[in-house]
Amino acid sequence: MTGFGERVRAAIAQHGHLCVGIDPHASLLAEWGLDASAAGAREFGLRVVEATAGRAGIVKPQVSFFERYGSAGFAALEDVLAAAREAGLLVIADAKRGDIGTTMDAYARAWLTPGSPLEADALTVSPYLGVGSLTDTFRFAVAHDKGVFVLAATSNPEAADLQRALVAREEPLTLAHDVIRETSAFSAAITPEGDWSSVGFVIGATVDLVESGLPASIAPVAPILAPGFGAQGARPQDLARLFGSLAPAVIASESRSILSAGPERIAETITAHADAFGSTNV
Amino acid sequence: MTGFGERVRAAIAQHGHLCVGIDPHASLLAEWGLDASAAGAREFGLRVVEATAGRAGIVKPQVSFFERYGSAGFAALEDVLAAAREAGLLVIADAKRGDIGTTMDAYARAWLTPGSPLEADALTVSPYLGVGSLTDTFRFAVAHDKGVFVLAATSNPEAADLQRALVAREEPLTLAHDVIRETSAFSAAITPEGDWSSVGFVIGATVDLVESGLPASIAPVAPILAPGFGAQGARPQDLARLFGSLAPAVIASESRSILSAGPERIAETITAHADAFGSTNV
Repeated sequence: MTGFGERVRAAIAQHGHLCVGIDPHASLLAEWGLDASAAGAREFGLRVVEATAGRAGIVKPQVSFFERYGSAGFAALEDVLAAAREAGLLVIADAKRGDIGTTMDAYARAWLTPGSPLEADALTVSPYLGVGSLTDTFRFAVAHDKGVFVLAATSNPEAADLQRALVAREEPLTLAHDVIRETSAFSAAITPEGDWSSVGFVIGATVDLVESGLPASIAPVAPILAPGFGAQGARPQDLARLFGSLAPAVIASESRSILSAGPERIAETITAHADAFGSTNV
Repeated sequence: MTGFGERVRAAIAQHGHLCVGIDPHASLLAEWGLDASAAGAREFGLRVVEATAGRAGIVKPQVSFFERYGSAGFAALEDVLAAAREAGLLVIADAKRGDIGTTMDAYARAWLTPGSPLEADALTVSPYLGVGSLTDTFRFAVAHDKGVFVLAATSNPEAADLQRALVAREEPLTLAHDVIRETSAFSAAITPEGDWSSVGFVIGATVDLVESGLPASIAPVAPILAPGFGAQGARPQDLARLFGSLAPAVIASESRSILSAGPERIAETITAHADAFGSTNV
C-alpha cells in the first residue's frame, strides 16, 4: 500500500485538481427528480460516483446530507463510499468530527479502519479541542494508509474573527496558522522524506492567505482541501495565484457548480471543470 | 410545549445536576459482558436508560461510540434515543457537529426535527467555523423546543492554547469568552424574559474559569454541560465552588465513573452520584 499523501499526489498528477462533492441536499435531489430520502441520497451518490470515475480522481461525500436520514442515510452512505472506492476514486468523508481521547478514537476507527462499514480514504476533522486531541487520529490514519484533513482557514465570513484570533507563542500566530504549525510539526516526524504528508488541511479558496496569517509554504507538503471554487466564487484558472506555493497540492472541491448540471449533463460538466484547473506541475 | 432551557431547569429542580453519559466504549462493553458491536452498544444503551429513569433527569449518549459501527450503530442509537425520550429523560446527543450553511442545517434537522429517526432534545456543536455559522441551528432548535450546547472551554489540556487565543475586540477576549459572548447576544434576542436559554455551553468542570478568561455570569441563564466530574477529577461537592454563579444551571456529566459500576450496580451508583451533587437552589 501507499500512504494517503502519495495517493493524493498520484491522483492529482493523473486527473488534476478537481474533487467532486457529493452533496445530496434536498433541493438538488428535487432537481435530479429524486426523493428527499435515504434512497434518493443513495441513488444520487451512486450516479455522481459513476459520472466521476475516470474523469476526476477524488470525491468528497458530505456526511451531513446522509446523516439527515439517520441510520437509513448512513446505510446509503456506506453504499456510496464502497462504490466510490471500488471505482478507484479517493474518497474524503467530509464529516468535520472532533473530540478527545477514546471518543475521537472511535470516530477515527469508524471512518478509517480498513473493512469498516463507513471506510473512506480520509476524514475531515475539527481542531477546536486542540491539535493535540487529534494526534492519535493522525497516527491511526497513517498506520492504515489513510488520511486526515484538519480544518484550518475556512471560506465563510463568520469564521474570520475566530480563525484569526492570536495564539500566544514567541511570535503570536493566528489560530489557523498555529493549527497548521502544530500539525505540520507532527507530520514532519512521521512522514517519509520527500513524501507528501497524509495529514492535510482545509483552506477555503476564497480565504486571503495573508490576512489569515497563514504560512506561504508548508513542510512536509500537505494536501490542501479547498472548497470555494465554482458556486462559492473562486475561479479555477486562479488556483495558482490564490494558493501560490501551496497550489500543487490543492484538491479543489466543487459541489453545486457541478451537481446542478443534473444527471444528464454531470459527466461532461466534470470533464470541463477538471480541465479548467489545468496543471500545476505536481 | 416548553422551551429546552426551561425543561433543563425543571429537570435540575426535580432530579438535581447529574447527567449520565451513555458511552459504549469497547472496554466498557467487555466489562458489561457485551459484544463490541452495534447490538452490544444498543443493549448497553437501553440498560443505562432503564437504570437512569427516575434516578436522574438527563442522559448524554456519546455518538462516536455508535457511529463506530456505521449504519447498524446508528440504528442502535435510534433505539436508545427513543427509549430515553419515552422514559421522560432529557437527551443530549453529544455529536460535536459543526459546519456552515445548508450543511449545518442538515445536521440540525437530523438531530432536532421532531419525529426524525435521530431525534434528541439537544445537540452539542463546535464553533470552529464561527458562532455565526451556528445561529440558524439555534433558531431551528428554538422553533422546535430543542436545545444546542456550543463547545466553549473544554477540560482537556491540549485545548487550552487554542481556546485562550485572543479575539480582536475593543477589549481582546479569549476565544472561549468570545464564543459565549456572541452566542449569548443571540440568545438574549430570542429567549423570553426570565426563561433559561435553550442555547447553552460546554464548559469542562476542570477548567479554570478565570485563567480561561470566562465571564463570571451569563445572561440569559444558559445551561452549562460540564464533563469532567467523576473519573476526570472534579468532585461533585465542589460544583458550587467551581462554577460560582453559573452553578445552578450546570448539567454535571459523568460517564466512566458511573458506567464502570457494571449492569448490576449502576442503578444504585446513579442514585449515590446524583445525591452527591446536592442542590444549588435552581
